[in-house]
Amino acid sequence: MEKKISSERIYEGKIINLRKDKVLLPNNEFTFREVIEHNGGVAIALENDDGKFFLVNQFRYGSQKNMLEFPAGKKEKGEDSLSTAKREIIEETGYSGKDYMYLGSIVPTGAYLEEIIDMYYAKVDMFYGQNLDSDEFIIVEQYTLDDIINKIMKNEIIDAKTIAMAFKIKEIKSLTNINITNYIK
Amino acid sequence: MEKKISSERIYEGKIINLRKDKVLLPNNEFTFREVIEHNGGVAIALENDDGKFFLVNQFRYGSQKNMLEFPAGKKEKGEDSLSTAKREIIEETGYSGKDYMYLGSIVPTGAYLEEIIDMYYAKVDMFYGQNLDSDEFIIVEQYTLDDIINKIMKNEIIDAKTIAMAFKIKEIKSLTNINITNYIK
Repeated sequence: MEKKISSERIYEGKIINLRKDKVLLPNNEFTFREVIEHNGGVAIALENDDGKFFLVNQFRYGSQKNMLEFPAGKKEKGEDSLSTAKREIIEETGYSGKDYMYLGSIVPTGAYLEEIIDMYYAKVDMFYGQNLDSDEFIIVEQYTLDDIINKIMKNEIIDAKTIAMAFKIKEIKSLTNINITNYIK
Repeated sequence: MEKKISSERIYEGKIINLRKDKVLLPNNEFTFREVIEHNGGVAIALENDDGKFFLVNQFRYGSQKNMLEFPAGKKEKGEDSLSTAKREIIEETGYSGKDYMYLGSIVPTGAYLEEIIDMYYAKVDMFYGQNLDSDEFIIVEQYTLDDIINKIMKNEIIDAKTIAMAFKIKEIKSLTNINITNYIK
């Protein structure tokens, strides 16, 4: 455990804030920890009736790469994750989901980042049409789970949440040997 | 693609830097992108002769959680990933590795973070003894791959790189149906 002694606000931004904390370590010495504040995110593996999943192909400015990822988005302050998921999946793919199942969460990099991503599986429900943010430019593609796993093993998909979700879905499908049934709603 | 027009330096720190870029979007409009600069990291799945893997249990200040993870570390500026891996695995577990295999890379969260983590598998070689940084407090534990996968499925392991590595190793072991053989050195 590390105890916060004091905190210095360095930056308040659009997506993230940055602060620097003075902390007391278990050996009773002091150090500084830099923390990126973030509301948290969600990601959704949406499967259509043909057993294909929607992936979004987009340029990611942080990594400076075009990346293939499950649709995802940032939670508004105080928003519950499932609400974010239901909103984001329509915005990015045009489709709503049903039979949502919680796949667990990931911490992308816990040393200095607050962000936690809650991951969901859902089946396609209705078509509403895409509704992207003005600074979002994405191409929606569809792949089978086997295709996605192959792309992960070839290092063509390197997005952390997408890797975790694809393998968790594979594991669940292999364990039950039938369709995913442990729906949350 | 998004083209950088100008860049404002906001913070230079110990683990990360922060800058804010003005960028030109594909629709010829401008926006700002916040970018966390980071040298990149490595992580190592080290397997012992009994088929158990070393995990480190430590409090992560960013996520404010005790987390169970494969040993990992940050690259020094300009350091190649395999050198970092060989250094970090001894520092954190006390053991060196041999028969290193590259497992691919992950981008923890590509929208605003530069960090890429290069992931390796290795077998235990020699014992040298732990050599932790003065602000590192970790407990080393050993688990079979099945234990690790079970903990992932129960949402007890939520570290992104650990999830990706465990499933990739499971996939490789199931594909070859024997031991991992595609060593890089």
